[in-house]
Amino acid sequence: MTSVSIDEAMRRAIALAARGLGTTSPNPVVGCVLLDPDGEVVGEGFHAYAGGPHAEIVALAQAGRRARGGTAVVTLEPCDHTGRTGPCSHALIQAGVARVVVAVGDPNPVASGGAATLRAAGIQVDLGVRAEEAEAGNVAWLTSMRRGWPYVIWKYAATLDGRSAAADGTSMWITSEAARIDVHALRGTVDAVIAGVGTVLADDPRLTARNLRDGTLAIRQPLRVVVDSAGRTPPAARVRDGAARTWIATAAEVGAGPDGRVDLPALLAEMHHRGVRAALLEGGPRLAGAFLAAGLVDKVVGYVAPKVLGAGPTALLDAGVGTIADAIELELTDVTQVGPDLRITALPRKREA
Amino acid sequence: MTSVSIDEAMRRAIALAARGLGTTSPNPVVGCVLLDPDGEVVGEGFHAYAGGPHAEIVALAQAGRRARGGTAVVTLEPCDHTGRTGPCSHALIQAGVARVVVAVGDPNPVASGGAATLRAAGIQVDLGVRAEEAEAGNVAWLTSMRRGWPYVIWKYAATLDGRSAAADGTSMWITSEAARIDVHALRGTVDAVIAGVGTVLADDPRLTARNLRDGTLAIRQPLRVVVDSAGRTPPAARVRDGAARTWIATAAEVGAGPDGRVDLPALLAEMHHRGVRAALLEGGPRLAGAFLAAGLVDKVVGYVAPKVLGAGPTALLDAGVGTIADAIELELTDVTQVGPDLRITALPRKREA
Repeated sequence: MTSVSIDEAMRRAIALAARGLGTTSPNPVVGCVLLDPDGEVVGEGFHAYAGGPHAEIVALAQAGRRARGGTAVVTLEPCDHTGRTGPCSHALIQAGVARVVVAVGDPNPVASGGAATLRAAGIQVDLGVRAEEAEAGNVAWLTSMRRGWPYVIWKYAATLDGRSAAADGTSMWITSEAARIDVHALRGTVDAVIAGVGTVLADDPRLTARNLRDGTLAIRQPLRVVVDSAGRTPPAARVRDGAARTWIATAAEVGAGPDGRVDLPALLAEMHHRGVRAALLEGGPRLAGAFLAAGLVDKVVGYVAPKVLGAGPTALLDAGVGTIADAIELELTDVTQVGPDLRITALPRKREA
Repeated sequence: MTSVSIDEAMRRAIALAARGLGTTSPNPVVGCVLLDPDGEVVGEGFHAYAGGPHAEIVALAQAGRRARGGTAVVTLEPCDHTGRTGPCSHALIQAGVARVVVAVGDPNPVASGGAATLRAAGIQVDLGVRAEEAEAGNVAWLTSMRRGWPYVIWKYAATLDGRSAAADGTSMWITSEAARIDVHALRGTVDAVIAGVGTVLADDPRLTARNLRDGTLAIRQPLRVVVDSAGRTPPAARVRDGAARTWIATAAEVGAGPDGRVDLPALLAEMHHRGVRAALLEGGPRLAGAFLAAGLVDKVVGYVAPKVLGAGPTALLDAGVGTIADAIELELTDVTQVGPDLRITALPRKREA
């Protein structure tokens, strides 16, 4: 075997981390590569699911005694607390590693402190290697941990002219099966799906992550959150079936904003409290408008079908914009053809306070 | 020199033809490559502007006596009539070429017949080599000649949520300067720009092809067509300035449809009669809706800005679609980022009669 550089090892650790995306929540994704004193790879691991072993533990188990005097390259600061698993800082000390290289510090106040513990034990700790890349791989988790509410992705489907349904209200289907399969995959990467009661009353969606071909449910289902200020979700609504957990969030439970509707920051804080790190906002247009107006959307994913209607409900309403200078500006980050449709991904630009 | 195949020569001829795009109207673009009896290239030409020499004449002049016994490879059937220039069929016969290879037959009843004339003179004529590629390069001209009305490109600019202005009517600017420069380049490739009187009254646009940086006009300006059923275009409207020709098309002049408005097929027939082969339909939303509803749009070019408004006029209105199954289906043919914006090009799918 040949030795690898710290930089190469971190790149590999970041790739390993990504394999946990969608299954580790409410934990972050983490990857770890262990090098022996000669720089040879002697262990690799990633965090695969909450409750399962951390990346460092998997890599240390592989390396065994060859970890002694070596370097652990980790995408996130090793945890320092005993949760469902023991602290990784102690495991690294016990294994006798000489150096720990970390991409991003842990913003979680409960778990952080790993770097300090390692340093106190005489281990060299370097922070910030390929930090930007590692951040990107963990953006939802890091963002939500730092500020205390979930990373919100607004997903919409519309025609080229911005309609989400025809004049008579029909909308099945605006987008292709390929696009809808993509949406179900997206649902599989988040902890919660949010919809307004208007959408529930109009379309009676299931809001589950399914295999569209055979209807089977994904093993891991996001929490279904219905924003239902006055508690109008019918008892027989599909979101109340047993396919996944559901939270009917009423103004009475969550608290109301000045307009008497569910207070959105309070809603998100409660979702965070329930372990939701990433959430998919699926409509309707007014709820999306309220989220956007309040600056609560972190990412936009639009499925745009190459068709036009010229009439019918629009995908977005009442985003608090009255004049062109106040338009909510986004930055395109990806445009991909999905079947016959376009998937447009964009990030809202930071706005002046 | 080395000899080239007929196929290679046609590919080169098609590339040559494209160099005339935007300046040959009302003529087609045409490219020609002349091979001597050994297959060596002895002449090349393309049609550069209406009234200028045809592609075959340019290539024959280059080749001189070396054309004798050779092959002319032409993207469009050589003309057979004397217009501003003499018939190319006769020039090819006089030059003594043995074979003429053509990509696409000439649909123009006035100019066609070249193949028959050549054959009558004992020249071998082959039709259909790389026909699809040559068709694509001449699509606007060929389409308009075959059916007798212009190739219509509907251009719109909108936000991601399909708005062409904010709630207060402000729209400057929805898209970036880069996108607007692209629009002016697009205007430079068509023979006419069409707008409804509503747009003229609301925005008072110039509808000229300009250099946006210094305001200078392009040498060739498209005809400005205002669809103005009741003749409401103000005397001081910018479209009436001297920067380009303008046609205020009223129902009284063109004829009215059942709704009392300008009859669109009659409008397009008259534009064709005036030499318009390609036209850019620039709005407003109702005029675009009427064109789309009538199946009169050949291509859609949308400039989509990565911003959302949630309110305000939509880019398209009243396209005659009431339910999702009747949506006007398009096929994406190109998606390109232009500055921060997206340019989406799509072709309407053929609809059942």
